[in-house]
Amino acid sequence: MQRLIDGFRYFRQEVFPEQRELFKQLASGQSPSTLFITCADSRVMPEMIFNAQPGELFVYRNIGNIVPPYAQHVSGVVAAIEYAVRVLQVRHIVICGHSDCGAMKALQKPALVKDMPSVAAWLKHGDVARYVVEHNSHGLPEDEKLACLTRENVVGQLEHLRTLPVVAAALARGILNIHGWVYDIAHAEIDVFDAEQGCFVKLDPGSGKLPDATPHLRFAATGS
Amino acid sequence: MQRLIDGFRYFRQEVFPEQRELFKQLASGQSPSTLFITCADSRVMPEMIFNAQPGELFVYRNIGNIVPPYAQHVSGVVAAIEYAVRVLQVRHIVICGHSDCGAMKALQKPALVKDMPSVAAWLKHGDVARYVVEHNSHGLPEDEKLACLTRENVVGQLEHLRTLPVVAAALARGILNIHGWVYDIAHAEIDVFDAEQGCFVKLDPGSGKLPDATPHLRFAATGS
Amino acid sequence: MQRLIDGFRYFRQEVFPEQRELFKQLASGQSPSTLFITCADSRVMPEMIFNAQPGELFVYRNIGNIVPPYAQHVSGVVAAIEYAVRVLQVRHIVICGHSDCGAMKALQKPALVKDMPSVAAWLKHGDVARYVVEHNSHGLPEDEKLACLTRENVVGQLEHLRTLPVVAAALARGILNIHGWVYDIAHAEIDVFDAEQGCFVKLDPGSGKLPDATPHLRFAATGS
Amino acid sequence: MQRLIDGFRYFRQEVFPEQRELFKQLASGQSPSTLFITCADSRVMPEMIFNAQPGELFVYRNIGNIVPPYAQHVSGVVAAIEYAVRVLQVRHIVICGHSDCGAMKALQKPALVKDMPSVAAWLKHGDVARYVVEHNSHGLPEDEKLACLTRENVVGQLEHLRTLPVVAAALARGILNIHGWVYDIAHAEIDVFDAEQGCFVKLDPGSGKLPDATPHLRFAATGS
Repeated sequence: MQRLIDGFRYFRQEVFPEQRELFKQLASGQSPSTLFITCADSRVMPEMIFNAQPGELFVYRNIGNIVPPYAQHVSGVVAAIEYAVRVLQVRHIVICGHSDCGAMKALQKPALVKDMPSVAAWLKHGDVARYVVEHNSHGLPEDEKLACLTRENVVGQLEHLRTLPVVAAALARGILNIHGWVYDIAHAEIDVFDAEQGCFVKLDPGSGKLPDATPHLRFAATGS
Repeated sequence: MQRLIDGFRYFRQEVFPEQRELFKQLASGQSPSTLFITCADSRVMPEMIFNAQPGELFVYRNIGNIVPPYAQHVSGVVAAIEYAVRVLQVRHIVICGHSDCGAMKALQKPALVKDMPSVAAWLKHGDVARYVVEHNSHGLPEDEKLACLTRENVVGQLEHLRTLPVVAAALARGILNIHGWVYDIAHAEIDVFDAEQGCFVKLDPGSGKLPDATPHLRFAATGS
Repeated sequence: MQRLIDGFRYFRQEVFPEQRELFKQLASGQSPSTLFITCADSRVMPEMIFNAQPGELFVYRNIGNIVPPYAQHVSGVVAAIEYAVRVLQVRHIVICGHSDCGAMKALQKPALVKDMPSVAAWLKHGDVARYVVEHNSHGLPEDEKLACLTRENVVGQLEHLRTLPVVAAALARGILNIHGWVYDIAHAEIDVFDAEQGCFVKLDPGSGKLPDATPHLRFAATGS
Repeated sequence: MQRLIDGFRYFRQEVFPEQRELFKQLASGQSPSTLFITCADSRVMPEMIFNAQPGELFVYRNIGNIVPPYAQHVSGVVAAIEYAVRVLQVRHIVICGHSDCGAMKALQKPALVKDMPSVAAWLKHGDVARYVVEHNSHGLPEDEKLACLTRENVVGQLEHLRTLPVVAAALARGILNIHGWVYDIAHAEIDVFDAEQGCFVKLDPGSGKLPDATPHLRFAATGS
């Protein structure tokens, strides 16, 4: 805890004074363009990885970067997405998984979270990825299975995301783009889900191209 | 009720004797290739519309041809899909809406089902379609809005379908195709969702072509 | 899938033209007198078995012709029954089981659906029948046990049906009749639950008599 | 989105190389000492404010830094806390609100989120704070009411936190401390809830003292 206090002193004395104007201006409102959904993991720091300034990223973090589907019982994620799309009018939603994720390991080996009923119940939202890997990865070594599970979980959560009424409506209007990424902690690399090809491709920051997971689908009224 | 009894007598005397062998053979097992999910509406008779024989269609019917997303509380639809994919190993799942659907009208005008708490709660699974239409159909006449809602509901339920672990796993293996259709009662026509184009197209039974809603996505392990 | 397309072409060319007037008339409304709840099984085709015309049967199908009891989490069945009784004002509800039912076999031998958590959870609604048979059928051969289970399941689902407020209210007013049937695929026979005798009797279509499962109970306030 | 890509390039080229060893070491595990629960707001960047390094803070973010109480339906927050306390064995949990919070404003004026059913449902978890302020702040100007609400919400969420079995157990063993803070964006100040005095006090990073919200309560069986 002393580390936090010291860090805060450093922030007040060294960082804040140089950005005083920015913070003053931000004091009465935010207008981030992106909702960034990622894991609570202490090694995944979205603002650091993307060099984001205060006010740029609306950041939702939970274990496993999970988006429960729209259903009878409201979750915090669903509420946050509704808020981000309707009030903040974000233009992008990124779901970002990462390497060595404890939630993915627990999904792979439920024994790791035995006696943790809440974690086990929460991870049910990752069953979609678990099934896909279990039924399609015979013969793969364990670490590759974990990498697959991490990617499939991002794909599965993107599917959940599309069940949210506010997201479906914004996609149909063409005013929202959705993205599925996986961040590699050791190598500072990002794999991006390319929905058109149906696979992940490495992000090349220099290329100027960014495949995404936005479906082609538009408002059906225009199509038939 | 007397109509039913008379109908059963007709079936026993006129229909059954001619297909006695088929029924005898079917008595100990079924192997339908398609799970057909449609509305309970009395005017939508899948076996009649597709001239299907006993044993061909595994038919799930509820109000609004709804597929709740995979979540904590098991629904009958989710159980039926799991059974169809795992035990019967169906190769196709069709979600089929229809014109003049009472569930869609209730979704459009919730006042129609006021004092019906269970219907209202069930129709929450159609919110995704309701939002899409509300936010994208300003200026459309009411009957076109209803047609849109009916199509968007099929698209939304296809999204829900993809959140089911067994479905995601089978899609990733390439052993399952999914289809979204809308049946027009008055004109005996079917509109088919073409996911590639992101819109509905009229089914031409003579063309030999059938667009579908199966995503390109394959098992992620093969892609990166 | 080609079979379906061909079947649809046949329907459009051979069947629909002869009933064009009926379909045109039905295009704007339905008024079925019966809600028919049966299994999704591909060999159970209610409209065929009862020679029903479009518009006659409101048909709910799931695995095991199950009606969950009225409880916290809304099921599609409960919503459909509420809709059928309140909006369509059906006068009859039939719950119809059938021979060689996969759901009943799975209820009898849970190992058949191991690794299918959603099916297993759904079949809990049939536990009432399983218990009755387990505790009362020592010495019976397996196939007779299956027949018993199929009948007891219909009786159990009739009990569930009576837990629904809209059903209880309509029964108390004497405006609704409920029926429990079992259909034999191989022999085209139907066994009917006779609540008065407390047993199943074979349906004789020529007799003009139809025992049912409607309780004698009326609104208690009237004193009868 | 281009800003994110550019930011990532900067991170890869300028930041990552200098910390390559740290990231390599972190690649196979984390052991943060603190679970930091705060708002998704884009202006609240915990790692920046506390100058935290990768691996130091396990960060949960949602709208309104809310912790639902332990109840029937598992939330992501409850699962994350269970994971943090049992698996990561964090020694501190901080709940940190902030000035100009959109969730608090919506709690104050529900009209701001009308037509957003999921946000409204989620904010019910803040009702405890809303009630406290409504019934105790007559005559206060609106901005002070908002500040009160923000503080009371932190206190209310601390109470929710104590309803979690894993938290209650760890508090009873004396191995966990809990903290309630409010961060002021414009002035880079933090107010800390001092449970002993029952009020908030300004954090003085130089004093070496940090009041907290950990209850005195110990395991009742020991008699203290």
